[in-house]
Amino acid sequence: MAAEPRAERAPVAIVMGSQSDWATMSHAAETLGALGVGHEARIVSAHRTPDRLVAFAKGAKDEGFQVVIAGAGGAAHLPGMVASMTPLPVFGVPVQSATLSGLDSLLSIVQMPGGVPVGTLAIGKAGAINAALLAASVLALHDEELAGRLAAWRQAQTDSVAETPTVA
Amino acid sequence: MAAEPRAERAPVAIVMGSQSDWATMSHAAETLGALGVGHEARIVSAHRTPDRLVAFAKGAKDEGFQVVIAGAGGAAHLPGMVASMTPLPVFGVPVQSATLSGLDSLLSIVQMPGGVPVGTLAIGKAGAINAALLAASVLALHDEELAGRLAAWRQAQTDSVAETPTVA
Amino acid sequence: MAAEPRAERAPVAIVMGSQSDWATMSHAAETLGALGVGHEARIVSAHRTPDRLVAFAKGAKDEGFQVVIAGAGGAAHLPGMVASMTPLPVFGVPVQSATLSGLDSLLSIVQMPGGVPVGTLAIGKAGAINAALLAASVLALHDEELAGRLAAWRQAQTDSVAETPTVA
Amino acid sequence: MAAEPRAERAPVAIVMGSQSDWATMSHAAETLGALGVGHEARIVSAHRTPDRLVAFAKGAKDEGFQVVIAGAGGAAHLPGMVASMTPLPVFGVPVQSATLSGLDSLLSIVQMPGGVPVGTLAIGKAGAINAALLAASVLALHDEELAGRLAAWRQAQTDSVAETPTVA
Amino acid sequence: MAAEPRAERAPVAIVMGSQSDWATMSHAAETLGALGVGHEARIVSAHRTPDRLVAFAKGAKDEGFQVVIAGAGGAAHLPGMVASMTPLPVFGVPVQSATLSGLDSLLSIVQMPGGVPVGTLAIGKAGAINAALLAASVLALHDEELAGRLAAWRQAQTDSVAETPTVA
Amino acid sequence: MAAEPRAERAPVAIVMGSQSDWATMSHAAETLGALGVGHEARIVSAHRTPDRLVAFAKGAKDEGFQVVIAGAGGAAHLPGMVASMTPLPVFGVPVQSATLSGLDSLLSIVQMPGGVPVGTLAIGKAGAINAALLAASVLALHDEELAGRLAAWRQAQTDSVAETPTVA
Amino acid sequence: MAAEPRAERAPVAIVMGSQSDWATMSHAAETLGALGVGHEARIVSAHRTPDRLVAFAKGAKDEGFQVVIAGAGGAAHLPGMVASMTPLPVFGVPVQSATLSGLDSLLSIVQMPGGVPVGTLAIGKAGAINAALLAASVLALHDEELAGRLAAWRQAQTDSVAETPTVA
Amino acid sequence: MAAEPRAERAPVAIVMGSQSDWATMSHAAETLGALGVGHEARIVSAHRTPDRLVAFAKGAKDEGFQVVIAGAGGAAHLPGMVASMTPLPVFGVPVQSATLSGLDSLLSIVQMPGGVPVGTLAIGKAGAINAALLAASVLALHDEELAGRLAAWRQAQTDSVAETPTVA
Repeated sequence: MAAEPRAERAPVAIVMGSQSDWATMSHAAETLGALGVGHEARIVSAHRTPDRLVAFAKGAKDEGFQVVIAGAGGAAHLPGMVASMTPLPVFGVPVQSATLSGLDSLLSIVQMPGGVPVGTLAIGKAGAINAALLAASVLALHDEELAGRLAAWRQAQTDSVAETPTVA
Repeated sequence: MAAEPRAERAPVAIVMGSQSDWATMSHAAETLGALGVGHEARIVSAHRTPDRLVAFAKGAKDEGFQVVIAGAGGAAHLPGMVASMTPLPVFGVPVQSATLSGLDSLLSIVQMPGGVPVGTLAIGKAGAINAALLAASVLALHDEELAGRLAAWRQAQTDSVAETPTVA
Repeated sequence: MAAEPRAERAPVAIVMGSQSDWATMSHAAETLGALGVGHEARIVSAHRTPDRLVAFAKGAKDEGFQVVIAGAGGAAHLPGMVASMTPLPVFGVPVQSATLSGLDSLLSIVQMPGGVPVGTLAIGKAGAINAALLAASVLALHDEELAGRLAAWRQAQTDSVAETPTVA
Repeated sequence: MAAEPRAERAPVAIVMGSQSDWATMSHAAETLGALGVGHEARIVSAHRTPDRLVAFAKGAKDEGFQVVIAGAGGAAHLPGMVASMTPLPVFGVPVQSATLSGLDSLLSIVQMPGGVPVGTLAIGKAGAINAALLAASVLALHDEELAGRLAAWRQAQTDSVAETPTVA
Repeated sequence: MAAEPRAERAPVAIVMGSQSDWATMSHAAETLGALGVGHEARIVSAHRTPDRLVAFAKGAKDEGFQVVIAGAGGAAHLPGMVASMTPLPVFGVPVQSATLSGLDSLLSIVQMPGGVPVGTLAIGKAGAINAALLAASVLALHDEELAGRLAAWRQAQTDSVAETPTVA
Repeated sequence: MAAEPRAERAPVAIVMGSQSDWATMSHAAETLGALGVGHEARIVSAHRTPDRLVAFAKGAKDEGFQVVIAGAGGAAHLPGMVASMTPLPVFGVPVQSATLSGLDSLLSIVQMPGGVPVGTLAIGKAGAINAALLAASVLALHDEELAGRLAAWRQAQTDSVAETPTVA
Repeated sequence: MAAEPRAERAPVAIVMGSQSDWATMSHAAETLGALGVGHEARIVSAHRTPDRLVAFAKGAKDEGFQVVIAGAGGAAHLPGMVASMTPLPVFGVPVQSATLSGLDSLLSIVQMPGGVPVGTLAIGKAGAINAALLAASVLALHDEELAGRLAAWRQAQTDSVAETPTVA
Repeated sequence: MAAEPRAERAPVAIVMGSQSDWATMSHAAETLGALGVGHEARIVSAHRTPDRLVAFAKGAKDEGFQVVIAGAGGAAHLPGMVASMTPLPVFGVPVQSATLSGLDSLLSIVQMPGGVPVGTLAIGKAGAINAALLAASVLALHDEELAGRLAAWRQAQTDSVAETPTVA
């Protein structure tokens, strides 16, 4: 029965703590778009909208989402708090912070206690792209067409690497 | 009207993420005890008991608490999440973590975004003692007797500092 | 008797180590202003004006202040030294430093020994805003009108978080 | 056709750089065992057995694995190198290192460039447990029985959190 | 017999993870050029072109290379992976990364486990220049003319250091 | 006139924040003793005995001291605060802290703002020894006999370095 | 006899590793100039001009210098190496480095082994100013006129600190 | 003519700053011994025996050494200073320090300025082993027998890696 809303709904939720995180997290959306993976992006602030956080996290599975990508910076609590309230896999993106280059974001996301996992990606844009690719690899386990598109994406990436560097 | 339950209830809540944090946080309880400040200690795990977190944080003021002391380690989300759901002042204690000496705990607690403050103390035992003293200083603003006890505690501390070091 | 000067005087002192810290600490003043909390801002350099430091810290309570917000950068000694000489709650703001991004400021403020607490906020502007909010939450414990304004401020903050990110 | 070996084979591969990593990675195996998730543990050293690395990574999908958990310490290249040669989701566990507490392991695993993701967990035992839980959450997307066991595991974890701390 | 291809081929290979690393690694090429040491520069991405990595590393000696200089940033696996598959000395250059200033690059390259060495140079341009000088010093052990050129280069460097600073 | 008390009084003051610092700072005393340099050791806590701090720092010169060695740990404010209130040269010793290995102590001491210098030595025992040697080198500028003893101490140190390592 | 050249020669040597360090170290020269303390600035590269290093360090006392200020960045060996070859007090200034903000410079200078002290100042401009002030405080121990100028400098600094911050 | 002493003398010098470094550096000696590579171990303290440093570094090539391995801890200046005075390749081993885990040692060795390279290995025992292997790989470029022994050593290392972890 859960299968039907899944078919209708985007399988990936992209949540972030503030509008300013979108400069980073939009790279996740773009990558999912390039792979033909449906997604919804929402602002869910763990600290400023805790009710929205609870509602989103507890309802994410019933909404039909299969994977959650969560990005936040500084004392970045969003990914871990979502993970505490959903059975879905959660992938975290540390957004580069103003003062400590994202080291605070990274440690706040990755150092979760045993029992509540967040699969954490690199700080910033690379992490956002990779969260999308990781989500796609999860979905591709049961979606042969997506698996094909993902393989093609990876092959194109490999093919794009020139043999020799060129003068800028 | 709110004054009545306050008179009956402990003014300080000490919450912590796990039983293992008690080795650190008990120093807060001891210090409050020495100052004659009522307190209750509870385990509230942001990640393993998110419902308890929400219930505690939203109800803390109505329970009669005036100050919350929250301790946690690693990706320490408890203090910040409590602060997001209560108007009470929240003081955070970074518990020393197994791998990164509490630097992760510290950054996860102190680097809160503008809008949701956590007054953060030192990593470990010193921070737990100081959270209690800071809570007492807040309560003492309107409790002359406590102000007197706190002044005496500080004076005793000053008096206990010997002039010259002695061989161990 | 102390109540009278309190009624006349600003309840919050904002002190900082140098004029250059005002770029950060003015955010504390603005936030207090938005909440209708009286405050005075002064430059008190622990290192260049130690006499002023002692005079301020020892006299802060008698001046009618109830909370001290202290900001400093680098080897930031101001918050801790004020805390050593006043029974008032002291909240510290690490100002972002030129070379080490404020990590030195943060550690110099937060790692106080047991006995003399400084409730430390985030590095930089976010910390300055939050010091003001934390001070307001302390004052609101016995000021229902301020509690109402603070609740409204927080609600407005919550309401201002859009549901979905928009293209910049 | 790939479904058949999957039915016969363990869905999760646990690989690690050396025998000494087993002290950490065995917690992943135990957690998967408690959840009834089949798994195989192998030593695959990126640096000392690069051929085995290539063979494992390129063949992991055909062997029937659906998720790879990779643990390594220091200049920890195993998770990222596996991820570069398999379309399967890879989750990395930074093993605590002798000299730098695992900060080197963490950065070597998590800071992957855009294009090749590794979902990174916490340093050490907590990370190993969480890698297993994250793998289980991925598999549970299409395994209702596992989803039930995982939900029960999480509920048991929640239930095990006492309300109040007890003296050690 | 191996001497003949060596005579024909460049003795130093400069490999890097991406085109963007060339801004740094070109300083290695320039320095080798100034010393009259033959070299070839190639892009070999450990993560995006793992097959090229294996082919290069396993074939480097047979191609006639005597020293490999490898530069990469972030989770920098290229130098260590090359070192795992070639008997040639490998010198690693940590490229300055976007978020963590190259500390991640440095630790990912230098903290190799016992058994597979990478001689690591400084982060960024200085490291690239020094990798070239170190490679030259290795080749100069059996090339008296190169030893002479290297000595002259060093003497010129010494001579270029003025006695007194001048106003900029 | 000041010369007379100098002749009578110890030229070096060793101050430290707490009794526990004596385990480190006693190495400064021992080294001064070995060099025949008079010294007095006192506990002066910047935070717990601020009045003693002010009295000591302002009176240090009149007491006849010529150099101050100050050791402290964590948020180590003692050296800098002494320096703010005395014209004497102040040398600071970061005492190894419980949680952050003395990095907090080091940054709190060394990162003084322009205008108030503290000459900072290494963390822990080495720093305490070196503070004594540095103080001696200052005093030796106008004490030929001390200069001779210091030269002999250094020569003995040089002579004690064996040519070849021996099995432990 | 040594007194005569001292009278003729500048008492403070300012040495630095490269011309580029002058942007930082010129602040030491300016501060000494403002205090009327004679000084000479030289470029002495520990790595590129090791002979000049040895000649300078061994001859510094005979040249009439009484204090050496040494600035360097990155793997900053100059201050420590000078200290190993002169009985004069050596003060080190960590120059801000290109990649690691001067943390490498700081640790390379301050973490000297027991036996060879370098009094280390803050990273960058503040450290350069303070090295000059510290040198002056050493010289002022036996130069009442300089002591007076230094006291006046400090008083002027104190006087320049406004009471209240002004809008930029 | 230089060839004759080389035939007679050990090709690898292992130098270290103090006797205590031998606990680490002996692993370099053991590894060279296992590979049949002649070596001499000496204590050369950059700070306590600067004359010995200069004599060793300037004479290393004439003594017949072809590669220098230098280990040191804390403000580790030995490798870089040797490199500044010899044309031979220098490989540096950061010895784990008492307070900062060897991070200070690592940065002091690896962050050399452009012009004077030190090929740096990992902190501690792994680095010592790897310095020996790197030295052997350099010597093996012109020693087919050593190349064979090195290849066998690496193969044995590969063969020793079990396929599956065993319970401790």
